[in-house]
Amino acid sequence: MINTLAYAATSPTAAFTPFSFVRRDPTPSDVQIEILFCGVCHSDLHTARGEWGGTVFPVVPGHEIVGRVSAVGARAGKFKVGDLVGVGCMVDSCQHCASCAEGLEQYCEEGMVGTYNSPDRHTGGVTYGGYSNIIVVDEKFVLRVSEKLDPAAAAPLLCAGITTWSPLRHWRVGPGHRVGVVGLGGLGHMAIKLAHALGAHVVLFTTSPDKRDDALKLGADEVVISKDAEAMRARTNSLDFILNTVAAPHNLDAFLSLLKRDGVMTLVGAPATPHPSPAVFNLIMKRRSLAGSLIGGIAETQEMLDFCAEHGIVSEIEMIPIQKIDEAYERMLKSDVKYRFVIDMQSLHA
Amino acid sequence: MINTLAYAATSPTAAFTPFSFVRRDPTPSDVQIEILFCGVCHSDLHTARGEWGGTVFPVVPGHEIVGRVSAVGARAGKFKVGDLVGVGCMVDSCQHCASCAEGLEQYCEEGMVGTYNSPDRHTGGVTYGGYSNIIVVDEKFVLRVSEKLDPAAAAPLLCAGITTWSPLRHWRVGPGHRVGVVGLGGLGHMAIKLAHALGAHVVLFTTSPDKRDDALKLGADEVVISKDAEAMRARTNSLDFILNTVAAPHNLDAFLSLLKRDGVMTLVGAPATPHPSPAVFNLIMKRRSLAGSLIGGIAETQEMLDFCAEHGIVSEIEMIPIQKIDEAYERMLKSDVKYRFVIDMQSLHA
Repeated sequence: MINTLAYAATSPTAAFTPFSFVRRDPTPSDVQIEILFCGVCHSDLHTARGEWGGTVFPVVPGHEIVGRVSAVGARAGKFKVGDLVGVGCMVDSCQHCASCAEGLEQYCEEGMVGTYNSPDRHTGGVTYGGYSNIIVVDEKFVLRVSEKLDPAAAAPLLCAGITTWSPLRHWRVGPGHRVGVVGLGGLGHMAIKLAHALGAHVVLFTTSPDKRDDALKLGADEVVISKDAEAMRARTNSLDFILNTVAAPHNLDAFLSLLKRDGVMTLVGAPATPHPSPAVFNLIMKRRSLAGSLIGGIAETQEMLDFCAEHGIVSEIEMIPIQKIDEAYERMLKSDVKYRFVIDMQSLHA
Repeated sequence: MINTLAYAATSPTAAFTPFSFVRRDPTPSDVQIEILFCGVCHSDLHTARGEWGGTVFPVVPGHEIVGRVSAVGARAGKFKVGDLVGVGCMVDSCQHCASCAEGLEQYCEEGMVGTYNSPDRHTGGVTYGGYSNIIVVDEKFVLRVSEKLDPAAAAPLLCAGITTWSPLRHWRVGPGHRVGVVGLGGLGHMAIKLAHALGAHVVLFTTSPDKRDDALKLGADEVVISKDAEAMRARTNSLDFILNTVAAPHNLDAFLSLLKRDGVMTLVGAPATPHPSPAVFNLIMKRRSLAGSLIGGIAETQEMLDFCAEHGIVSEIEMIPIQKIDEAYERMLKSDVKYRFVIDMQSLHA
């Protein structure tokens, strides 16, 4: 058993505090990882504060993990000690359903095992995430991270990156496509970088005029202030695909009407209260679709990481010590971060 | 100029009355058709009663037209006098936009010209539909109807048939697919017949237990009473595609949750007031899509008519004389028709 240091929330209203627990010894197919960096995802906050229900306390969030392999199981041949690796939102799945067989473990029929706050298939307990110094994961769910990438800035690729990459690839975004990205936050800024690198013409939609310069620097070809009715009207029927990263309830029709015939708008954020109901007319008159997408499979996560290494893509980050996690959550709630907090896990030993 | 007999509504509240007007003489690319039968679509009622706005009175509805060619223009080579033909929801389009070029004239960027109550590109007036004895249409918008089919029962194929055929084909429904059809009315009963003939396993969803036997006779493999929570739950994640023909506002989530991963539910009815907003969670967790579809293009309408001739598929109809059209509308509002009224146009001369 491996003694592990972490930070945990012990109740929906408690501040994070140091927490110790044991990880399992690596099984023959496991990889043991010394965690270097962990990104801070909005899901961490929802879970730590019990906003989605079902949180088992104490909870150790964190599913944007980058670290180095510190031990490998006897049959774990993918990695060797010292390799730079990543772990994302999943650490297990049934491995025999149709979705797992297709490499889409996030849609596992039995339910994927989340990196934190999920029933642990090994221990019978609950999984603990990346706000910790060590993690032990089956090698199938461990990703290779190129030494070319800044390991801290690569951490958010494991959730924000794959969550935007998967729908961009599934709906075949590429050269010649006009792609809308709604919202410039942790997900939106990755969507711009990835869609741009895939060769698409990228139009960023935001309610904040002061985000215009940033969006252009990140790779957007155009920025539209979504409150500007005239600018919106000028884009009617002009986009092939829209990736909508905004979880707050908003008027979907304003964006659906920008899609060409057969265009698709994919939602990757789930609002706490429903969006206003979209007009069926907007779907029917141009055979448009409104879809959803959940993170991404392991194979496509590796594909995304390799693509990012090739194109020099990482997240824009602000590094924090673990002791500042509560403050970081408060700032996230005010969108006061450009564009992802990443915890330097060395701070655990401070 | 061709003197034409018709029935028209002269105001949103007026009963239908006899109405005479002139059709244009056939241009070189036109076909003149003596109308034998015209189906009665719910859109006729919405338009005649001004429920969608924009109705120009007097209005002559009717866009499920079957008749025989009575004259052809000098360059109209597709048809000869005496041919059995059909005209559906469109009689014109711009013919040069991307959608027209792809044979999807219903999505014409300049707007298709509806068979009735649309600006007429030839006369500058408004188009008059099939509740009449003669129609003159560019041959591009005239369909061949097999002599193998009962011409009266074939009439509803021109709208109810193609409106269900087009999405079934676009989303590649065929053998091995499990397809849901929501609602058993004019559209729903055609959807069952067509999906069954395409080789799919068809599950009909209805709120009316007394429609069960009919649905099975029409070709459904299973009938589920959508108010039966247990029966609905048993079908979770089981369907590849759902064609939802119900225009009344209803809970879309009850059906979205029945789709497998990557499943699509396509709406072909537009409610007057919005459906309750669908849960984004239901889209994200299985990468499902909610889509819409509008009638179908001319090429796929011909494909559908040929398929129906090959498989002996027509609509279930109740024939009426034109003098009973107001009564038929009242009965449609009570769903008191199995499953489509068709007007015997000989009654115009009674």
